[in-house]
Amino acid sequence: MSDKALPLVISAPEPRTLGLIFTPRQLNVFRRKYRIVETTPEGVSELPTDVLAEARYIVGQPPIAPETLEKLTSLRCVFNVETNLINNMPYETLFARGIHVVTTGLVFAEPVAELGIAMALNLARDVVDADLAFRQGEELWGGDGNQTARLLSGADVGIIGFGDLGRALNRLLTGFRTRTRVFDPWLPPSVLVEHGVEPASLDKVLSESDFLFVVASVTSENQGFLGADAFAKMRKGAAFVLLSRAGVVDFPALMEAVRTGHIVAASDVFPEEPLAKDHPVRSLPGFLRSAHRAGALDVAFKRMGDMVLEDMDLIDRGLPPMRSKRAERETVSRMRSKPVDRN
Amino acid sequence: MSDKALPLVISAPEPRTLGLIFTPRQLNVFRRKYRIVETTPEGVSELPTDVLAEARYIVGQPPIAPETLEKLTSLRCVFNVETNLINNMPYETLFARGIHVVTTGLVFAEPVAELGIAMALNLARDVVDADLAFRQGEELWGGDGNQTARLLSGADVGIIGFGDLGRALNRLLTGFRTRTRVFDPWLPPSVLVEHGVEPASLDKVLSESDFLFVVASVTSENQGFLGADAFAKMRKGAAFVLLSRAGVVDFPALMEAVRTGHIVAASDVFPEEPLAKDHPVRSLPGFLRSAHRAGALDVAFKRMGDMVLEDMDLIDRGLPPMRSKRAERETVSRMRSKPVDRN
Amino acid sequence: MSDKALPLVISAPEPRTLGLIFTPRQLNVFRRKYRIVETTPEGVSELPTDVLAEARYIVGQPPIAPETLEKLTSLRCVFNVETNLINNMPYETLFARGIHVVTTGLVFAEPVAELGIAMALNLARDVVDADLAFRQGEELWGGDGNQTARLLSGADVGIIGFGDLGRALNRLLTGFRTRTRVFDPWLPPSVLVEHGVEPASLDKVLSESDFLFVVASVTSENQGFLGADAFAKMRKGAAFVLLSRAGVVDFPALMEAVRTGHIVAASDVFPEEPLAKDHPVRSLPGFLRSAHRAGALDVAFKRMGDMVLEDMDLIDRGLPPMRSKRAERETVSRMRSKPVDRN
Amino acid sequence: MSDKALPLVISAPEPRTLGLIFTPRQLNVFRRKYRIVETTPEGVSELPTDVLAEARYIVGQPPIAPETLEKLTSLRCVFNVETNLINNMPYETLFARGIHVVTTGLVFAEPVAELGIAMALNLARDVVDADLAFRQGEELWGGDGNQTARLLSGADVGIIGFGDLGRALNRLLTGFRTRTRVFDPWLPPSVLVEHGVEPASLDKVLSESDFLFVVASVTSENQGFLGADAFAKMRKGAAFVLLSRAGVVDFPALMEAVRTGHIVAASDVFPEEPLAKDHPVRSLPGFLRSAHRAGALDVAFKRMGDMVLEDMDLIDRGLPPMRSKRAERETVSRMRSKPVDRN
Repeated sequence: MSDKALPLVISAPEPRTLGLIFTPRQLNVFRRKYRIVETTPEGVSELPTDVLAEARYIVGQPPIAPETLEKLTSLRCVFNVETNLINNMPYETLFARGIHVVTTGLVFAEPVAELGIAMALNLARDVVDADLAFRQGEELWGGDGNQTARLLSGADVGIIGFGDLGRALNRLLTGFRTRTRVFDPWLPPSVLVEHGVEPASLDKVLSESDFLFVVASVTSENQGFLGADAFAKMRKGAAFVLLSRAGVVDFPALMEAVRTGHIVAASDVFPEEPLAKDHPVRSLPGFLRSAHRAGALDVAFKRMGDMVLEDMDLIDRGLPPMRSKRAERETVSRMRSKPVDRN
Repeated sequence: MSDKALPLVISAPEPRTLGLIFTPRQLNVFRRKYRIVETTPEGVSELPTDVLAEARYIVGQPPIAPETLEKLTSLRCVFNVETNLINNMPYETLFARGIHVVTTGLVFAEPVAELGIAMALNLARDVVDADLAFRQGEELWGGDGNQTARLLSGADVGIIGFGDLGRALNRLLTGFRTRTRVFDPWLPPSVLVEHGVEPASLDKVLSESDFLFVVASVTSENQGFLGADAFAKMRKGAAFVLLSRAGVVDFPALMEAVRTGHIVAASDVFPEEPLAKDHPVRSLPGFLRSAHRAGALDVAFKRMGDMVLEDMDLIDRGLPPMRSKRAERETVSRMRSKPVDRN
Repeated sequence: MSDKALPLVISAPEPRTLGLIFTPRQLNVFRRKYRIVETTPEGVSELPTDVLAEARYIVGQPPIAPETLEKLTSLRCVFNVETNLINNMPYETLFARGIHVVTTGLVFAEPVAELGIAMALNLARDVVDADLAFRQGEELWGGDGNQTARLLSGADVGIIGFGDLGRALNRLLTGFRTRTRVFDPWLPPSVLVEHGVEPASLDKVLSESDFLFVVASVTSENQGFLGADAFAKMRKGAAFVLLSRAGVVDFPALMEAVRTGHIVAASDVFPEEPLAKDHPVRSLPGFLRSAHRAGALDVAFKRMGDMVLEDMDLIDRGLPPMRSKRAERETVSRMRSKPVDRN
Repeated sequence: MSDKALPLVISAPEPRTLGLIFTPRQLNVFRRKYRIVETTPEGVSELPTDVLAEARYIVGQPPIAPETLEKLTSLRCVFNVETNLINNMPYETLFARGIHVVTTGLVFAEPVAELGIAMALNLARDVVDADLAFRQGEELWGGDGNQTARLLSGADVGIIGFGDLGRALNRLLTGFRTRTRVFDPWLPPSVLVEHGVEPASLDKVLSESDFLFVVASVTSENQGFLGADAFAKMRKGAAFVLLSRAGVVDFPALMEAVRTGHIVAASDVFPEEPLAKDHPVRSLPGFLRSAHRAGALDVAFKRMGDMVLEDMDLIDRGLPPMRSKRAERETVSRMRSKPVDRN
């Protein structure tokens, strides 16, 4: 097959790179199966018309003006490998033309869920402070060191948001045999029941959980929806684990609920990232901190390439993509989770 | 029913207490169903002959001399609620007479397994040091902080010992979909296969695991069986999690394997407990410490009472105990796990 | 709320009826939340222009001409409750306008899968003929009656097609701990792996299965794709269970493979339905017959109504449907499974 | 190693044979590791004193008189491969001496449970009569043939008896997501809960099940305990599946409950086996018959040999058997399930 016959891909994956999202072996496959035109996001609109006309796929989330889209006559799918959708292309036109817009965020679900379980167990057993005390020769032995210890097994668990990440969490919880309630207004109750969790109102999830995981994306509707009122409803001593975006909580209110000892908390995300050196959360007892490290594992990035290759293969055969997550016409423009600018 | 007709129980649960192992409600049931004679372990042999003759159960692990056992003519079961069997009663005679000796250690399996998972995830994601760095304003954001991060999901896991604790661990691992190999010379391969794990040699478990959990009891045969050779066989960077007794490892060799960076490790148990203030493990990087806190949760102790009540009920009805673990004639005298002297 | 304000639904569910797909309680909810205009499939195009203009939903699969579609200016979703898509509406225009076309066939997955398991176990244990022999006093006792008996547990299972039905089958197989291979060219391997099955080629699934379940829909590409060659590749004595449509197999070749004793088979579907009274499959030994009864359970139909209500509720709130299955632009016009004309 | 040094096994497995319970490969291993003295059950007491004195194992359930047992000075385990314990040896002396008596009945659990599921699904979907009607050209198509059809998925299931067989059933039910209640007076509630089933009274299991599986062994206490009263308590139309022994039910009362249409039933066991040619159950509509074929699969027998080899290996190493089921001192003499006299 002459190279000319290979489908053309515009690659503008910033802040990702092809080397980040593909293993060397996958990258070989990618280069063998496709003609790759590499550029920056801003460079896409500058590409020659014949390149735009031939492009079957775009890897990345470059700004696409309507007039550029008109030239992309062969386009079938945009693979957003940053994964947070921003409003920088005419989604309606894309959808009307039957062009898929997909994200590869599924790859982060498992790593983030694992850190979520780690955080929950750390809060339940006070692992960090127990190790610190041990380093300083001040550890408490046996039951003496377990005054606030409790089990995740059999506990009441709440999950807010039941997308890929909520489902990954639910899967990791399998062996813990928790009673798990989920609040997700974008899903019908039966879908939750099918996953073995109980559909519940936000109030119920807040007030009847021993461990509460927040994994909801930020949308135009839910910014800061977890505030002082919400924390007040939580069980005394319950553990609050924030894994999605700081934007869904009133962060000062969360800190206050921890400071007063009403709840304990862990978070991977913060109102500003990086965070001011003197931010009070740094020294807040009862709060476990992680610097947006939950998903950014090399193994996760490498799965993106596999995902892209599998879905391109389907589309090449006239089929719809089945592994990446498709942006939905109804919700794409409500998304407000800030993209990352580093990996 | 006159109180006289109630079955008699000798209670000598030290270091446990009835208040520790029973909830108030269960303790009421216990007192309503049985006549309880409370004494110290040493006091048992001093009890009046008619008390000994009537006793159906002993709760505790008191020393029992052959001549005392002769007087215990109605004895049907000894409930060892400390849970580590020591050689202080004529087991052969007990078994010959059909008297059960049972331990309630199952209650610790779940709490210990949970801490084991917490430790594994902490080692995988460096949770403690990341939080410490954050406190000090030196945290690394995103992928920069994940240089050594990896997943438990899908990993090669090894478990040494597949009693209650190994099984609890295996259950908690369900959702992580690990490939789990087990070394347990006391079990036939088919029993392991039935639990969904792969039977494997010690060598294989050592050399092909990303995470290795040691949950084997100390016996007359396995003291210190994990030494420098064993650690050398482990994968570079693998995580070693010790949950049973320090007696099964050569502790200095373990520390050395961590110090050189060959492996990382976590342990809940130590060669002496409490440990000397200047013990070098206190400051060893790559080592996560817990002061024998894994099992000693109030909720675990309370399950002991439930266990005792359920099995007494069966024995009262002429049935064998089904919930506690029976000491085995063949292995009871090989056990060397030191009992605790505090809860 | 005045009735006028309620969203309008055009109901033309033939051959279903509202009474079939809704429980009385659900039907009440449906009537309370929506204005229902009931008509026949052919009647839809005759409806007054203002009714068409107001209709938010269509329940059924009526023929829709382009000019009718133009009048359906508020349409958001077509709920196909017959469930087999036919090419009687301008799908491209529907998709371009962002109108969902969904089917409720998921409700049949569980009942059909259960009959599939029943058929497999019947073939494995010869349940029907054993009962007949017993009626006639000619039964064979114990092992004598088990000459060809075998287990589903631990067997090699093949599934062709992994849509809702294949997944339901896979779920029911959980406890049987089979080794399950799946051939489905419309899915990427990783999606199969995620469901705990092995992606495999058609050849491999044919040649290495003890039990083979065919649950693929008929498409423009796979009509009669399982013929004499395919059956010849199967293991001697293997069980072939056909649950989707007779159109995917060469039926005479299937019968011949059973007649010669190479395989045994069961089918819920036939080349013509009803079938000629003298069709040779009626008397074919080694063949278990079911008259397209696998899915048509009242409880299944009633779930359709629930499904419709849940998805209408989401769409009413500006969200995409999440429970029904969406027709895919790429594949909708390839579907060839004949609709039923009776329930 | 000289043959003389091999442990000695007395083999009297009637009605089994070594060829039945061992694969050729396993039999080789067996003969290589042990000196086998083959005899009939009656022949055991006739064996030379030195043979008896050397015998470490007995395979079979021969009658053993006290004076013979005295000569069996090296005996460590009796492997009952018929699997129904009868009272033909001095069990108390065996237990007092620490000799294990084990049965290999576990091998039947999976095959019997599979037939049980087959029977339940057959009753739910009327598979046998539907196939017969089809043979005769009288089949009803689609929903018309499903007037009494229902699902096992999500149903209320009752299990009476939760030994190996009940557990195998429960495992096979996993994917059906039933609500399963169990009555077993020999087990504490917590053991049932641990298996994911609800402990329940006999009354509750009878009156709140859509499918009821009876898998309890006959004991001195439960003969005929399921009679007219019990069947009257069952839900109208419920399915009764008898898999253990006819001795636990009042068979005429069971037939009457089916005859009146109150319940449907299936049974693998009968009051006499073989059954009289004119027994009325042969022509009883609503009753599915199987001639004690549930367990007697070759694959099951072959697992016995594997079981024997694994447990002999453990005992040879000074460990207790872990795979076979040990007879219990308390219950061994209560067993009344009749041994089979054919395989």
